[in-house]
Amino acid sequence: MVRTILVVGAGKSTSYLLDYLLKKSDSENLRLVIGDLQPKNIPEQFSSHPNCEVIALDIFNEEERKKAVSLASIVISMLPANLHIKIAEDCIQYKKHLVTASYVSKEMEALNEEVKKNGLIFMNEIGLDPGIDHMSAMEVIDRIRSKGGKMLLFESFTGGLVAPESDSNLWNYKFTWNPRNVVLAGQGGTAKFIQEGTYKYIPYQKLFRRTEFLDVEGHGKFEAYANRDSLKYREAYGLQDALTLFRGTMRRVGFSKAWQMFVILGMTDDSYTIENSEGMSYREFVNLFLPYSPTDSVELKMRHYLKIDQDDIRWGKLLELNLFDPSKKIPLKNATPAQILQFILEDSWTLREDEKDMIVMYHKFGYEIDGEKKQIDANMVVIGENRTYTAMSKTVGLPVAMATLQILNKKITTPGVQIPISMEVYQPILSELKSYGIHFKEYEVLYLGYNPDSVAG
Amino acid sequence: MVRTILVVGAGKSTSYLLDYLLKKSDSENLRLVIGDLQPKNIPEQFSSHPNCEVIALDIFNEEERKKAVSLASIVISMLPANLHIKIAEDCIQYKKHLVTASYVSKEMEALNEEVKKNGLIFMNEIGLDPGIDHMSAMEVIDRIRSKGGKMLLFESFTGGLVAPESDSNLWNYKFTWNPRNVVLAGQGGTAKFIQEGTYKYIPYQKLFRRTEFLDVEGHGKFEAYANRDSLKYREAYGLQDALTLFRGTMRRVGFSKAWQMFVILGMTDDSYTIENSEGMSYREFVNLFLPYSPTDSVELKMRHYLKIDQDDIRWGKLLELNLFDPSKKIPLKNATPAQILQFILEDSWTLREDEKDMIVMYHKFGYEIDGEKKQIDANMVVIGENRTYTAMSKTVGLPVAMATLQILNKKITTPGVQIPISMEVYQPILSELKSYGIHFKEYEVLYLGYNPDSVAG
Repeated sequence: MVRTILVVGAGKSTSYLLDYLLKKSDSENLRLVIGDLQPKNIPEQFSSHPNCEVIALDIFNEEERKKAVSLASIVISMLPANLHIKIAEDCIQYKKHLVTASYVSKEMEALNEEVKKNGLIFMNEIGLDPGIDHMSAMEVIDRIRSKGGKMLLFESFTGGLVAPESDSNLWNYKFTWNPRNVVLAGQGGTAKFIQEGTYKYIPYQKLFRRTEFLDVEGHGKFEAYANRDSLKYREAYGLQDALTLFRGTMRRVGFSKAWQMFVILGMTDDSYTIENSEGMSYREFVNLFLPYSPTDSVELKMRHYLKIDQDDIRWGKLLELNLFDPSKKIPLKNATPAQILQFILEDSWTLREDEKDMIVMYHKFGYEIDGEKKQIDANMVVIGENRTYTAMSKTVGLPVAMATLQILNKKITTPGVQIPISMEVYQPILSELKSYGIHFKEYEVLYLGYNPDSVAG
Repeated sequence: MVRTILVVGAGKSTSYLLDYLLKKSDSENLRLVIGDLQPKNIPEQFSSHPNCEVIALDIFNEEERKKAVSLASIVISMLPANLHIKIAEDCIQYKKHLVTASYVSKEMEALNEEVKKNGLIFMNEIGLDPGIDHMSAMEVIDRIRSKGGKMLLFESFTGGLVAPESDSNLWNYKFTWNPRNVVLAGQGGTAKFIQEGTYKYIPYQKLFRRTEFLDVEGHGKFEAYANRDSLKYREAYGLQDALTLFRGTMRRVGFSKAWQMFVILGMTDDSYTIENSEGMSYREFVNLFLPYSPTDSVELKMRHYLKIDQDDIRWGKLLELNLFDPSKKIPLKNATPAQILQFILEDSWTLREDEKDMIVMYHKFGYEIDGEKKQIDANMVVIGENRTYTAMSKTVGLPVAMATLQILNKKITTPGVQIPISMEVYQPILSELKSYGIHFKEYEVLYLGYNPDSVAG
């Protein structure tokens, strides 16, 4: 019997997802229905596939949406996180499973009882981060526990970066995902984590100066700044007793210290608009944030304001973005500083069609076993093929596609609104990801923790 | 005929207001009704006055509130700003005038047409700041204009400070008003102003480092940081063409640079709570915001994190607050960093009963007349008597009381929801304030502006 998979929100990040499912469509008896507001936007290679149908679908049109859901065997929603809920409610009504790569919202969580009652599986957070991070972490944590170990420390870092072969700017960074998220990073609230049993808080104004360094064998040195939500999975991972919990975002070394310039200037602010932004030059934009002077140059005011020495490479990073160019104009009307900064950065940081991105993930697991403290470090590096077949799209799309098939094939059977932290889910998927070059290297390292001598600090 | 004045919200800041009205009560035929949730809290000196009645009044009890309003000739609301609106609606229903010292809210503004239709006067922003600032500024601006001058620049600064004779700490600051507002100062949004026709924006993370200095003859040097709302009164004051508009808050020199330490640490954050705050020591609180170390002291981590040299007086300021004391405990449950910081500061910065506060206001008026550029600087200094009869209570309460009497005596007659910027209002009140020692000294100074050579910058 043919199984119909409805894919809603098939943006540019779903190339690997669609590829995977269509390649298996004959052997697995799959039919793909891609619902999109603009069916013409779906690339020919997918829409022309015999097992694929593209339909016009406006998810705000209740009739269209309910009809599409009712005809499917399972639904994949790749919509923005806040749009899943309508689909989810339809899935309950028509008794369909649901897969998303998004964080479980409160509204989604609230459906858990009904989802269970109907024997359905609503699998969320099964992309890269969240997704592969959950699965790879739980695989090691469960292994440590099965041997009788007790978790002391868990740190986890992810970065969506540019591959070394396409890295051509001083920031060692290009946009490989949603640029807006990069500009607004860290503004969701104070970063909170726990080190050796002590709570630590980092406000936005210091976030990009409190980085720590990470070495990834064969790939060099990285830095990481703290995520807001290091304690988010304490319960889910069963790490209530761990002394250290930290989650961070990875960048190439030096990025964060340079980014801090924008933070301090106020250029990442998204809370107010600049009335006369349209037609403003990059130079005028910069000058909005500097003290007035009738004679001093914008350059010197900037150097003085941010204490940038003559030989500080951060200056080169600013020049590279043409920030002081009076002929470069901003075309945005009534834009926020963050929107304008994004525009300026996209000017320099956009991946060309032939350029490659890179995903890096790094976990540290500290534990105690038989009275001995040990540590496992694990890292994963994935390089993309080009701007369409990115490492990001691969690491997000493949786990989603694999989970969908596992659910259809009744390999994943536990019902409920869930994230991929159970062995039933992560074992087959991690194993299959390996054959696609997505795997972790593990290293046993010395457990250093943060407190070798147990001195309070 | 006796005129009844209903005073709602008679807190500790209303001593001068009540004094003024009761002293005039015989000659002016006034009867004061003070409505308070806890009538016992009203000091004996007021409640025992033959022309004063204290009634129990819960403003959330509609019947009680409407009855009290209906029996009055005019209502003074000294409630927190967000609580005026119910009273205002009652005032329309029973056709009573209203006086407040608060900013005009959108809800209040929306009543304007109805207030006018009923021939009522809702006078707002008639305290110190807002209040005396409006009146004293418009007095000079109107005078300049009446002579044919054109305004180029308006800057206005206010500070609620400790008087020199009671200034006994390294911060040269004590709380003389609402401590919470001091701790949260600057967090309402990016400061926006205009200098020589160029917009300027200062984010919170730089606000306390972008101070300018002011000399007040006979009172020494002060500094000021930008208010959020420098452009707020552009229309009201008719300053649409002025090249420079700036409003700021005054402190003694060095305060802001030291305050910046709290900002950068994250201690002024009011957006999240610390679960285990109760019983935490001041020292542990500080350590929440510093990097973890098993061995380094909180003191050295702080010096390094904030780059505080051995001979930097900011260090003395921190020590004075007992910030590193492990025996000083925080009694607050689940408190935000800002609430905890406030508690610690109140420990050191609370005015004693015999100590005096000081209000300083400073205006700069730049203008052009007969092709010549000129400037008038005006300043006002008021010293309080003690913790009850503060300069703050005097400069807020007297204009409110005077406006109330002027309205009753039909000296102020223009109806509508308004602020005191018309000559009808400010002239008699400023004149009467002089007899209470509240007056401005004016100086003709060289007009410097910010752009002597008209070079763009």
